[in-house]
Amino acid sequence: MIIARTIAEVRKCVAAWKKEGQVVGLVPTMGYLHAGHASLVDRAAAECGKVVVSDFVNPTQFGEGEDLQSYPRDFAHDCALLEAHGCDLVFYPEVSEMYAEDAATYVEILSEMPKQLCGKTRPIHFRGVCTVVSKLFNIVQPDRAYFGQKDAQQLAIIRRMVRDLSYGIEIIACPIVREEDGLAMSSRNTYLNPAERQAALVLSEAVFLGERLTEAGETDAAALLAAMRAHIEEEPLAKIDYVSAVDGVTMMPVSKIEPGVLVAMAVYIGRTRLIDNFTVGGTADDC
Amino acid sequence: MIIARTIAEVRKCVAAWKKEGQVVGLVPTMGYLHAGHASLVDRAAAECGKVVVSDFVNPTQFGEGEDLQSYPRDFAHDCALLEAHGCDLVFYPEVSEMYAEDAATYVEILSEMPKQLCGKTRPIHFRGVCTVVSKLFNIVQPDRAYFGQKDAQQLAIIRRMVRDLSYGIEIIACPIVREEDGLAMSSRNTYLNPAERQAALVLSEAVFLGERLTEAGETDAAALLAAMRAHIEEEPLAKIDYVSAVDGVTMMPVSKIEPGVLVAMAVYIGRTRLIDNFTVGGTADDC
Repeated sequence: MIIARTIAEVRKCVAAWKKEGQVVGLVPTMGYLHAGHASLVDRAAAECGKVVVSDFVNPTQFGEGEDLQSYPRDFAHDCALLEAHGCDLVFYPEVSEMYAEDAATYVEILSEMPKQLCGKTRPIHFRGVCTVVSKLFNIVQPDRAYFGQKDAQQLAIIRRMVRDLSYGIEIIACPIVREEDGLAMSSRNTYLNPAERQAALVLSEAVFLGERLTEAGETDAAALLAAMRAHIEEEPLAKIDYVSAVDGVTMMPVSKIEPGVLVAMAVYIGRTRLIDNFTVGGTADDC
Repeated sequence: MIIARTIAEVRKCVAAWKKEGQVVGLVPTMGYLHAGHASLVDRAAAECGKVVVSDFVNPTQFGEGEDLQSYPRDFAHDCALLEAHGCDLVFYPEVSEMYAEDAATYVEILSEMPKQLCGKTRPIHFRGVCTVVSKLFNIVQPDRAYFGQKDAQQLAIIRRMVRDLSYGIEIIACPIVREEDGLAMSSRNTYLNPAERQAALVLSEAVFLGERLTEAGETDAAALLAAMRAHIEEEPLAKIDYVSAVDGVTMMPVSKIEPGVLVAMAVYIGRTRLIDNFTVGGTADDC
């Protein structure tokens, strides 16, 4: 596995692969990799001749007071996981390699879409995500890029960006990977102390409750969300940011639960903000 | 010469060329081509195995009350010129091929740079330019792209965008091409009636005056600009938008004239807004 710390090295490797006619897959990550990331790499390795994984804690998607400084990192562990899952090149740049001191160009969706859900409390987050993913697309020029369904709004926004900016890249969504007890895998789970780790189960429990109610025929979004919220509110360590039902493409609120609706939540467990979601009827790109 | 009206056709052609190992050059234009555009195509044809020219009047770079509707078009003439200058593919899309009805993703430089010079009166112009050029880069994935020095601020902004978004594309600047009497070539010159066409010479005259004064040793920007403005103000049909001296990279105003300084102007001749400029010491990429 090649470890590339510069954009130039990545370009050189990918150019050589493309000359060979290889299909190139990209898995953008912020590192501290877990089984959720591994599932993305597995799928990329199964579908692409060459797999590039970026491992970069992107500062432009963190707002003031967020966890940029404390975001967990373990590159040695990441490398071991990536090598075991068939990654061909890991791109591990310094911040200075990715952003000039006076960098000021941003990619942004100027609609209501990035203002919904996580965008309400993280106003610059998706601008930072679009900008760094755009850069990664320009550096790697992949045929396919793999994103987790756990970050459902991010996925929808990347799809919209790809369409609007005419990127010729196929976006593949992979399902949420969960711990045995249900908690959605997240690098941020490491922030949780034992009591919080237990309390964090209210997210997946609310997701499973929502899925059961939906399967049982609940079509009223307000009723569904009220039931999910009520469950979360039973947990003293949990504080709801949002529990919402939105159109799975536009991210705009819906009142009726039907196939394609995304039911998503963000919940603080202590000081740690966690997210989880499900899509009614499943997602088109489940692997 | 291939005429491609869809993004898919362009991608298919370029992919085939890249498989052959061809170097691909892109010349983005808004059509109604003149000798200035031809010089860009000539240079691209000299340096690249395959030349793509886009011919698209991009609505997102026109503000309200600007000349989107009246912007001149003559695709038959464009094709004849392009074929004669060695263009391999002209991309001539409908607006609906380039922009979905709900397209909302923009590429924008969030610094003072796009607010200077033309940005003062055209606040959304460079956002539209960056967005469409970004799309063209993503569609064509050229090795090199060619821009005219006449649109000096656009050129500087594209260079900054390419750097900030990590596009692996070499940006080539080509010098201003002028009519025999000095007027910088522009598709908008067609708006001028005979009296205005004569009056429009104050722009190039002011540029030449500025160049002469600079060569004679004038280093005070205020004095230089005052002399240039005074010349333009002698013409009753002319109304100055701006005559400015700025850093050639950042577009920020300077007080001292030295190599690398861009001296640029926008002047209304009747209702037609024309631009012209020179760079002290010439530009690095002059061809």
